[in-house]
Amino acid sequence: MDTQIRIGIAGLGTVGAGTARLLTENRALIAARTARDITVSAVSARDRAKDRGLALEGVAWENDPAALAARPDVDLVVELIGGSEGAPKQLVEKALIAGKPVVTANKALIAKHGLALAKLAETSGAALCFEAAVAGGIPIVKALREGLAANRFSRVAGILNGTCNYILTEMHKTRAPFEEVLAEAQGLGYAEADPSFDIDGVDTAHKLSILTALAFNTAPALDAVHIEGIRTITADDIGFAEELGYRIKLLGIASESAQGIVQRVHPCLVPKEAPIASVDGAFNGVVVDGDAIDTMLFEGRGAGSGPTASAVVADIMDIARGVTPHPFGVPVARLAGIAHAGIDSLACSYYIRLVVIDQPGVLAEVTGIFRDEGLSMRSFLQRSRMPNAPVQLVITTHETNESALQRSLERITALRRMVAAPTMIRIENL
Amino acid sequence: MDTQIRIGIAGLGTVGAGTARLLTENRALIAARTARDITVSAVSARDRAKDRGLALEGVAWENDPAALAARPDVDLVVELIGGSEGAPKQLVEKALIAGKPVVTANKALIAKHGLALAKLAETSGAALCFEAAVAGGIPIVKALREGLAANRFSRVAGILNGTCNYILTEMHKTRAPFEEVLAEAQGLGYAEADPSFDIDGVDTAHKLSILTALAFNTAPALDAVHIEGIRTITADDIGFAEELGYRIKLLGIASESAQGIVQRVHPCLVPKEAPIASVDGAFNGVVVDGDAIDTMLFEGRGAGSGPTASAVVADIMDIARGVTPHPFGVPVARLAGIAHAGIDSLACSYYIRLVVIDQPGVLAEVTGIFRDEGLSMRSFLQRSRMPNAPVQLVITTHETNESALQRSLERITALRRMVAAPTMIRIENL
Repeated sequence: MDTQIRIGIAGLGTVGAGTARLLTENRALIAARTARDITVSAVSARDRAKDRGLALEGVAWENDPAALAARPDVDLVVELIGGSEGAPKQLVEKALIAGKPVVTANKALIAKHGLALAKLAETSGAALCFEAAVAGGIPIVKALREGLAANRFSRVAGILNGTCNYILTEMHKTRAPFEEVLAEAQGLGYAEADPSFDIDGVDTAHKLSILTALAFNTAPALDAVHIEGIRTITADDIGFAEELGYRIKLLGIASESAQGIVQRVHPCLVPKEAPIASVDGAFNGVVVDGDAIDTMLFEGRGAGSGPTASAVVADIMDIARGVTPHPFGVPVARLAGIAHAGIDSLACSYYIRLVVIDQPGVLAEVTGIFRDEGLSMRSFLQRSRMPNAPVQLVITTHETNESALQRSLERITALRRMVAAPTMIRIENL
Repeated sequence: MDTQIRIGIAGLGTVGAGTARLLTENRALIAARTARDITVSAVSARDRAKDRGLALEGVAWENDPAALAARPDVDLVVELIGGSEGAPKQLVEKALIAGKPVVTANKALIAKHGLALAKLAETSGAALCFEAAVAGGIPIVKALREGLAANRFSRVAGILNGTCNYILTEMHKTRAPFEEVLAEAQGLGYAEADPSFDIDGVDTAHKLSILTALAFNTAPALDAVHIEGIRTITADDIGFAEELGYRIKLLGIASESAQGIVQRVHPCLVPKEAPIASVDGAFNGVVVDGDAIDTMLFEGRGAGSGPTASAVVADIMDIARGVTPHPFGVPVARLAGIAHAGIDSLACSYYIRLVVIDQPGVLAEVTGIFRDEGLSMRSFLQRSRMPNAPVQLVITTHETNESALQRSLERITALRRMVAAPTMIRIENL
């Protein structure tokens, strides 16, 4: 008979209920693979009466999530409440201090308090695992920490938010405007009533900061992430990108620069043929560049009950097998004081869309600014002629410095015949 | 100061030299991530004089690889000779019996003797790791054994041989005949002088049997793999597939059937939009279907010095961190006596290309056979009319049973106006 591991689950939403279900449905298989009998002994959630389709007879109920940590019949705490402050944080802290291993899907908590929690974990020797915090069912945390650990990474880039990827994919398919597709996504339950957390890039930034910590063995530095969302992307941008051989994706990217690691979340033009360009709809994809592997892509479902539960239970199984990895791949004392650099230190190519009054001399003004700032134009596109009316000009540049680009944009914005603020999208070679 | 782990490497070919180089180049990074100082203390290879670009001063040399196992200055044995019998097998056995952990890239050895070696490892408590045996730098062994371990898998399907994938990709690009592309691949060093191991599917079968063992927690059963290679694929097949919305790939597939697990290596038509359809050239790709994750794709370089060394060193680092996984994910006693089923128990759709004398009544004969055997035609294509001369007919079927299909093909082959043996390619939904 396999010795038991008794799980306490805090939060019985989609992921919590999915985790309880997966542990039950695959109990025999999980026991065969871990030589442990893993069962849920206690839970905590807001509404006790709600029918979640779970058999919770014989499972203790705590109204206060933090109480799970103290229960003698809980060997391992699973935190699936979400949010960086309050009850979930207290629960994780209490459990780690008590030496109980913690598995969480809470990206905000790890992004904001990852270092402090890793210290608590190290002090008591308890595991702190968060595979489910990034990219749902894709085992990317384990890949960076273990499977690809022999590599010096130069870049990690991912489609990490299913809502944004769904919206951009639909816009590509239908050429409908952003607001329309967003409303549709909200109707289908793919986007929240208040969608800003997703579409303004904050969720991606949380996840990116965790991937950065794992890839570069540093503490998560959420404040160092440059964040732009997808609200400004128009159907025209999608069309122009297509014409130029690109797809538009919201990426979270951590890459090396001479000044340090640059973390950034923004829409990108990626070449159509790049494998990540075909990661569509609610799927997530992560590209990892390392000195030994060259490049690698992971693609899978980034959210939802099953995929996220898969990641949660994989962490539980690691712990059941006696594996207690350092949360960020190295002991806390070895988390390097790696320099974080701002977006200013970036060098890349750019897509710029201008809306201008179609009059002689406008292009000369723009190219004059480029010349002054040392920018080199790679392509130029003006689809229609509308003398004295607004037309769209699309420009792509050769690789240049972000600050030169920003200075140029500022000067271009100030031009007399500019009708709207320029749209700028970075081009990422993937 | 980190305690040392001293490595003995047998075999200094591309992968062996790459492993020694990676351990040297990333020594500090590897030490930070494992808290161990990992160095090469002894090597064994055929030609001592050969310049491999390695600094081997102070590294002991053994002419007999098996002698590495007995050296007191070798804590961990890395076997990179290759081949299932003789010296590499003796080395691995001796090391495991001595309780020394073993890391190997030897797919033939694991495919043929995996169970016996896992028993030796379990008896002495030594690790036996073989991430590098399958799909180069892609950490698919770890993903099946750990990252996705909460899933009941229904199918694992992979492009596991870079030579075949390079040839099929080139044929797709240029529509050149197989023999021409093969010769070109040989010239470029992408195919061996005797290419049969790759192009007849044997290499893929070795790798598939290992993935099957991991996914279904059973011993590798190489003899149960149905194997077909890519020699019979013509440029016309590539063209017809394209016209029908497919790409042709050599896949190794393990899938569930009512009779048991079916393992098979054969060319497949995969839908153009399937992510694995775009895994081109020397890249490998593995699709994993599980009850919690739904579906997931891993794509990366499947061979070469860097990617394979990445996998070898990742295994070394796992061992350095004190992780000793069961070779096939579960203790030997728990390797399920899973039923293996033959290709006969398969049900799928088929692509059939016939070369017939263009005369009235041929199609009626073929469809008559289909009617008798219960086969349902999905599409039919005859590009040209050449009365009384050979023409090509292309047929796809709805899902049907492999044995019914085989009986039909036998009867079709015997038809009077059949000019050549029919070509059959299975259609895989991915």
